[in-house]
Amino acid sequence: MATLLMPCISRFLASPHLRPALNGHGTTSDFIRVSKSINHVVPRLWARITSAQAASRAVENDLQGYWKHVYICNSGRERQVEFLPFIVEDSKIGYIHPKFLKHLRRFPEVFIVRDDVVNGMSKGWVTLHELLQTPQLRTDAIGVVLLSLEMEGLIPGWRNEHYPVVISFGGRSLFSLERAAVPFFGIKAYGVHMNGYVQVDGEKHLWVAKRSATKQTFPGMLDHLVAGGQSEGIGCKENLLKECDEEAAIPAFLAEKATAVGAVSYEQIKGEAFKRDVLFCYDLELPADFQPSNKDGEVESFELVPVAEVAEIIRTSQRYKPNCALVVIDFLFRNGYIHPDQPGYLQLLQSLRSGECQ
Amino acid sequence: MATLLMPCISRFLASPHLRPALNGHGTTSDFIRVSKSINHVVPRLWARITSAQAASRAVENDLQGYWKHVYICNSGRERQVEFLPFIVEDSKIGYIHPKFLKHLRRFPEVFIVRDDVVNGMSKGWVTLHELLQTPQLRTDAIGVVLLSLEMEGLIPGWRNEHYPVVISFGGRSLFSLERAAVPFFGIKAYGVHMNGYVQVDGEKHLWVAKRSATKQTFPGMLDHLVAGGQSEGIGCKENLLKECDEEAAIPAFLAEKATAVGAVSYEQIKGEAFKRDVLFCYDLELPADFQPSNKDGEVESFELVPVAEVAEIIRTSQRYKPNCALVVIDFLFRNGYIHPDQPGYLQLLQSLRSGECQ
Repeated sequence: MATLLMPCISRFLASPHLRPALNGHGTTSDFIRVSKSINHVVPRLWARITSAQAASRAVENDLQGYWKHVYICNSGRERQVEFLPFIVEDSKIGYIHPKFLKHLRRFPEVFIVRDDVVNGMSKGWVTLHELLQTPQLRTDAIGVVLLSLEMEGLIPGWRNEHYPVVISFGGRSLFSLERAAVPFFGIKAYGVHMNGYVQVDGEKHLWVAKRSATKQTFPGMLDHLVAGGQSEGIGCKENLLKECDEEAAIPAFLAEKATAVGAVSYEQIKGEAFKRDVLFCYDLELPADFQPSNKDGEVESFELVPVAEVAEIIRTSQRYKPNCALVVIDFLFRNGYIHPDQPGYLQLLQSLRSGECQ
Repeated sequence: MATLLMPCISRFLASPHLRPALNGHGTTSDFIRVSKSINHVVPRLWARITSAQAASRAVENDLQGYWKHVYICNSGRERQVEFLPFIVEDSKIGYIHPKFLKHLRRFPEVFIVRDDVVNGMSKGWVTLHELLQTPQLRTDAIGVVLLSLEMEGLIPGWRNEHYPVVISFGGRSLFSLERAAVPFFGIKAYGVHMNGYVQVDGEKHLWVAKRSATKQTFPGMLDHLVAGGQSEGIGCKENLLKECDEEAAIPAFLAEKATAVGAVSYEQIKGEAFKRDVLFCYDLELPADFQPSNKDGEVESFELVPVAEVAEIIRTSQRYKPNCALVVIDFLFRNGYIHPDQPGYLQLLQSLRSGECQ
C-alpha cells in the first residue's frame, strides 16, 4: 500500500493550496478555547486566536490543512530505494541504510550482506548468519553487536527496552532488540495512543496535553492524552492501562473502559533511520469531573478543548506532535468532523495508513 | 493497495480454521436475541441459536470468521489480469473484459481498442475516440451504444440512473453512464451506508433489517438500517437523508444527526462484470422509542439486536448481505468489539479497504 499511496500524497502536496500550510510553522498564539461549562477550567495557558486562524474558517471545507501532518509523518519516504532489505526467515522484516550497514559488516558472524548488482543497480540485501537459527541465538548475537555500537556512540537514546521483531503484529517473535536500534534496522514498531474525551452539553471535548518544555522530543508541542510504545510481553490494553496511570493518572477502573477504535501508520526516513510505526488507537470517555495529572514530568499541563477547536488547531497549525495529529485526525474522521462531502476525503482517510499496517 | 493485500487475504483464506466457515452457509436458525429492555420488541422472527454458534463462542477471540465476508466481497479478484484497462484523459478509470469488449468493438466511432502484445501477453487497453473531447459528447455517444446493447439483452437490470465517472470521488465528471453498465466497464461506484443504533442500559444495540423475500438481490438476508448508491448531482449527506426516509422512515430532523465515520471498499469480479465499490459509512444514534418502517417494500422487518450478538451472527454465519457485513465489521472495529489483542487485527482492519479507495 505504501508505494501505491505515494502518488496520492505527492499529488496533494503539489497543490498550491497546501504550500502556505507547509511553510508556516504555527505560532505560540494559536488558539485553544477552554470550555466554560465544565468545572475544572484551567488558565488559558496556550494563547489567543490569530487573525490567520480566524480567516481560515472561511475555507473550513478544505481538508488540505490536515495533509501537512501526513506529509511530516511520512517525510523522506522517497529515499526508501537507498535502503537494503533486511531479510529473516524469508520475510522482509526491515530496511538498513548502507551508511549504517558499514558498521554491521564488521560482524560477519552475525550479519551477512549480499551485494548483488542487477543492471547497474544495487540489489543487495542483509540477513543473519545461518547458524543463528533460534530467536534466543539471534537476540543474543545482535545484542552483543548493538552494545558494541552503542559504546561507540552510534546508537543514541539507549532505553534498555527490548523490542520484538515480528512479521505481523501478534505473530511469533523472530528475535528482539534494543528499542533505540529499531529505526536503524527499519523494523516496524507498534504503540498504543489514546484520545480522552468528555461530553459537555452534548458536545465532545478532547483532553489536550502540552508536552513539557524540557522533554527531549517535541518539547512544548500539543499531544493527546496518553501514548506509549508496545514492548515485549505485554498486551495492548494492559500496556494502555499502565500508560494511562503513568501519563495522566487515570485510575484502572476508568482506563479499562477505553475502547479500541482502529489504527494509523506511517513510514518516515531521517538520515540512516527508517521509522515504520503502527499506532493502535483508543478512545476513552471520561467523566466531566475527572482531571488528568501527569506523574512522569513529561506533560506541562492539560486542557479540555471542544473537538471543533482541536480540528482547527490541527488544520491550521503545526502545534501538535505530528504522529499524535494523525491519531486525532482519525478521531475527527470517526466523529464526522471530516466528512465525504469535503473534496479529498477518501485520499486523506487512506493516508492515515500510509505505512505497512500489519 | 489492492494487489498488495491479496497475499494477506490469501494467507488468511488458506487457514484451516477458516475452511469450515467458508463451506458453511449459515442456517435459518441463526440466533438473533431481541433485547427485552426496550419497548418495541418484535416477535423472534429469525430463529434460535444453533449448537454450532454456541460452540463458536469458545473461540470468540478468533477473527477468522469475519474474513469470509471480506473474501466474498473481493471474490474473483485474481482474474483482474484478464481485463483490459479503460483509459480516459490518461487515467485508468476502469477495466473491461474481452468478452464484453467484443460488443464495444462494433462501435469504433466511440470505443478505440489497442491490442498490443508484449512478450506474448496481451497488453491492450480501451479508450474513447479522440473526437469525444467533452463530458457531454462522451455521455451522449456512450449512451447510444449502451441503449443498443441493452436492447440486445446484454446489459440486464437497466435503472435509468446516470452514474458519474470520476478519477477520484468529488472530482470532475469525465462523463456519465447508465448505472447498470458500470460493472461492465469496471468503473468505481460509490454508496452511502448507515448503521442505526440505540443505547439501551449503556449497551449499544444495532437495528438489523431483514430484506424482503421477494427482493431481486440477496432476498431474506440481513442488512443494516439504510443504504443507497451515490448518483450524479446529490451530496452524500443529502443522499443519505433521502434514503433514511425511503428505507426506514427516519424523519429528517433525526437523520441529519447521522455522523460520517469512514469508508470501506472492495473489488469483485463475476463473469464479465468488475464491481469496484466504495461505501461511505455513517452512524446514527436513534432514540429508544423510534421504530423504523420501510416504505419501498424492500424490507420484511427490523429488529434491534445487541451489538455483541450482531458480531456473533457475522462471525459465525453468512446471513448478512456481504458488503453490508463489511460496514458492520467497520462498526465493530470503531466500537472495540474487535481489538488489537486478537491475532490478525491489523490485517482484518486493512482488508476493509481492499478496493482502491479514492
